[in-house]
Amino acid sequence: MTVETPSDKASWLRNCWYQAAWLHELSTDGFLERTILDLPLLLFRDADGASKAILNRCPHRFAPLSAGTIKGGIVRCGYHGLAFDGSGRCVDNPHGAITSALCVPSFPVVERHQGLWIWMGAGAADPSGIPNLSFIDACPQTARIYGYLPTAANYQLLTDNIMDLSHADYLHPTSLGGMMTTAKTSTKEQNGEVTVEWLSDNCCPPPAFYSMVPPPSRADIWIQVIWNAPAVLLLGTGATEAGTPRSLINEAATLHNITPAGVTSSHYFFCSTRKFKVDDAQFNSMLGELLTNAFLTEDKPMLEKQQASMGTADLFSLKPALLNIDAGAVRARRILTRLIELEAQAG
Amino acid sequence: MTVETPSDKASWLRNCWYQAAWLHELSTDGFLERTILDLPLLLFRDADGASKAILNRCPHRFAPLSAGTIKGGIVRCGYHGLAFDGSGRCVDNPHGAITSALCVPSFPVVERHQGLWIWMGAGAADPSGIPNLSFIDACPQTARIYGYLPTAANYQLLTDNIMDLSHADYLHPTSLGGMMTTAKTSTKEQNGEVTVEWLSDNCCPPPAFYSMVPPPSRADIWIQVIWNAPAVLLLGTGATEAGTPRSLINEAATLHNITPAGVTSSHYFFCSTRKFKVDDAQFNSMLGELLTNAFLTEDKPMLEKQQASMGTADLFSLKPALLNIDAGAVRARRILTRLIELEAQAG
Amino acid sequence: MTVETPSDKASWLRNCWYQAAWLHELSTDGFLERTILDLPLLLFRDADGASKAILNRCPHRFAPLSAGTIKGGIVRCGYHGLAFDGSGRCVDNPHGAITSALCVPSFPVVERHQGLWIWMGAGAADPSGIPNLSFIDACPQTARIYGYLPTAANYQLLTDNIMDLSHADYLHPTSLGGMMTTAKTSTKEQNGEVTVEWLSDNCCPPPAFYSMVPPPSRADIWIQVIWNAPAVLLLGTGATEAGTPRSLINEAATLHNITPAGVTSSHYFFCSTRKFKVDDAQFNSMLGELLTNAFLTEDKPMLEKQQASMGTADLFSLKPALLNIDAGAVRARRILTRLIELEAQAG
Repeated sequence: MTVETPSDKASWLRNCWYQAAWLHELSTDGFLERTILDLPLLLFRDADGASKAILNRCPHRFAPLSAGTIKGGIVRCGYHGLAFDGSGRCVDNPHGAITSALCVPSFPVVERHQGLWIWMGAGAADPSGIPNLSFIDACPQTARIYGYLPTAANYQLLTDNIMDLSHADYLHPTSLGGMMTTAKTSTKEQNGEVTVEWLSDNCCPPPAFYSMVPPPSRADIWIQVIWNAPAVLLLGTGATEAGTPRSLINEAATLHNITPAGVTSSHYFFCSTRKFKVDDAQFNSMLGELLTNAFLTEDKPMLEKQQASMGTADLFSLKPALLNIDAGAVRARRILTRLIELEAQAG
Repeated sequence: MTVETPSDKASWLRNCWYQAAWLHELSTDGFLERTILDLPLLLFRDADGASKAILNRCPHRFAPLSAGTIKGGIVRCGYHGLAFDGSGRCVDNPHGAITSALCVPSFPVVERHQGLWIWMGAGAADPSGIPNLSFIDACPQTARIYGYLPTAANYQLLTDNIMDLSHADYLHPTSLGGMMTTAKTSTKEQNGEVTVEWLSDNCCPPPAFYSMVPPPSRADIWIQVIWNAPAVLLLGTGATEAGTPRSLINEAATLHNITPAGVTSSHYFFCSTRKFKVDDAQFNSMLGELLTNAFLTEDKPMLEKQQASMGTADLFSLKPALLNIDAGAVRARRILTRLIELEAQAG
Repeated sequence: MTVETPSDKASWLRNCWYQAAWLHELSTDGFLERTILDLPLLLFRDADGASKAILNRCPHRFAPLSAGTIKGGIVRCGYHGLAFDGSGRCVDNPHGAITSALCVPSFPVVERHQGLWIWMGAGAADPSGIPNLSFIDACPQTARIYGYLPTAANYQLLTDNIMDLSHADYLHPTSLGGMMTTAKTSTKEQNGEVTVEWLSDNCCPPPAFYSMVPPPSRADIWIQVIWNAPAVLLLGTGATEAGTPRSLINEAATLHNITPAGVTSSHYFFCSTRKFKVDDAQFNSMLGELLTNAFLTEDKPMLEKQQASMGTADLFSLKPALLNIDAGAVRARRILTRLIELEAQAG
């Protein structure tokens, strides 16, 4: 169901699945509070362990339900004791009859690919619309790295960040970048999907690639980002010694998935997987730290300063000087704008 | 006199007496700054010890007078030295003549029932409109407990909180509640006064009643709240061993009086009195801590979260699901709305 | 060049020189971020050491350039590596051609009288409009005291503060004031310049004058403030033993120069010079501390409280009760208002 908020004028696609959490964030006896599309949500598990999402607001006096308790999948308001199940239905009114007004808006959720997906649109919630991220499930657990990083920037700025990886040369010069600006780059758009590729032959690999091509060897590096609306990005990387054939074993695939919290705040989910060193716990931990640190100390401060500098103005209204490197990001933005307009016309 | 503020559109009754302070809060040589109905006020005593209230703003350059000094009941602005008495009249202009423009708006105040009462309306300030709280004066000082607790919530949310004491079972389960939800409840309205009663026969008393009915005895408990506009609430409680006659000695009466600071902030004054253990300093101190802790750690966080969840929207505009327990609070709100409308039509 | 901001409706003169910094604040290899007239600016030195001022915002994706690096006077954006010189011209685009869109707005600056002056208007930036402050250059370095004190108050409140020094008797009673209220005061206006004078014959000098007239001697004190638009104030002070002739050697001259940061925030620059004890490092340090402490602990808190009390309302719209002591400040405000209106009509 849809609940109107002051930000409905915001540029959000509503008829789509957003990632609300990683499944491991949901305990069996606690709440996860998360604001998505400016709506305060309560995520929890029912008695059977199934994930649920309801509005974090009691319909009686609007106390946040997260200030109450949960037991056996039943949420009880901490103010006057009304209790609700995972569908938002009132299951106990200690003060009288359970009327139809006594319900909390709930939202369809699906557990898939280690994540919790939520539908906040008016249209039918068809799980087949959830992006296919089976590469995560296919990867041994020991080679997965999960991240959840809230960021005070509009979700489209986070999309732009991944769609233009040339930034790695300037923002991450000591870890991830160095060869992106000089890479052979191509952008293509097909069926609402935007793909950007970077090919760096015979380059000096940055530290993040040492495990595939240790120094002092030179490397051939291939990188690909595939964007799908609203902000689901798959980043594939691979490297071999310069001049040798590509090897599937040397590849890594990372999900970057961004869910709008509000107009200038986002939930940034990532999951890194790889085909090498899949059982190496120490390497997994080292790589997790490298990725998290790069984002927390380099991307996040830059994105948040960029947001502060832009205020709440739309990017294009500020007339940015567009460069070649913006090709992918601009295409993605245009597709998304068109989808949002179509949704507005239909709705 | 009235001074217009940006919040005059707020839902406030103006032609009524508001409690501005407890008398013990006013020293003989200091200021008390307090914002009421969004106006910054300066409360102090004149040379004779009489309480005074003037706007906390010099008419010359609008410096807050509280940044200056007070001596012998004369307030001197700390910026350019203009001095004012308790009526707001300028009594010294070091720089020239005292003109009629050199005055600070002042407000009628009355000291009564251990409190300072202020009139901020345009109508005549008739002290007979001050609520009769002589039960406070009649109670020995050793059995009084005063409280002043500023709260970041609209004053009507604090009224609702007292008008519906069923919340004690959920918010204060280990101290005050347990038998409210199952109590026989009645609500009546008469001459603009709303009374709610809860009768709990043969119940297990909560710790706050142990001094009247110690465990393991069961108790008969009677509780009554009387509301008068704008937000003056008298809470009477009593308990005897189950099945025995009511005893006046076993009664306590508490004032809960809420004065709007701004639209989402309030001054919450309370005064607890009782007819038992009136000379027991240790009991007085223990009970004071229990009441203060219950509010600070349970009511106040819930009220402030509720306010944050509601934003500045009017309660009814959010279409709350009303329950039986809301009967008293809703009647009080309707009476108050009518009084505010009548005042607006008259003024 | 001019860049429009949300505050262009603010009461600012644009076609004039504002002090942006003291020259010693600009290092040879760093940035100085400073917001002036609500525009975020980046101040730095080019390869030749010349001061430069450009907008602190990359034209590509609006990242603040201060989040990047500077080397040899070239500023490089830390996000995607675009590089700009002191004129705002792009000198390196690692990703393609340098187009005309790739430039950052720059602002004329002039180094003069130990300060950096910036022109943010649409008109011609004629350096002859910079106020003549050669008294600073003429004073031995050992007798100069520089100050930079950001203040959360509108720049005109800081002007008012200096134009009405009677405040020293109330705000600085133990250091600077005592004889101002009783001084013979005169105000004159000529060619857009406002001069206020205070003459205190045979007075008890405050501690700030002890070096000229030590206690228990009585003093003749002369003080003069000359205001020029927008907020350049020269404060001259002098003192001799009561009844003896004026002596030039006993004079001090202080610049008070206020540059608007935003509507309720200012950059306050001061520079104190004197003709006595010019080589006394200990005295210089003591006097610097006295002036800085007086502002930080007395003026600044009062100005910021005054601003908070006024909100963003214009002073005259609040109908202040004007006193004799306001004569100079009111004339200065009227001249400034007329200049801003003339500029608006012309532009």
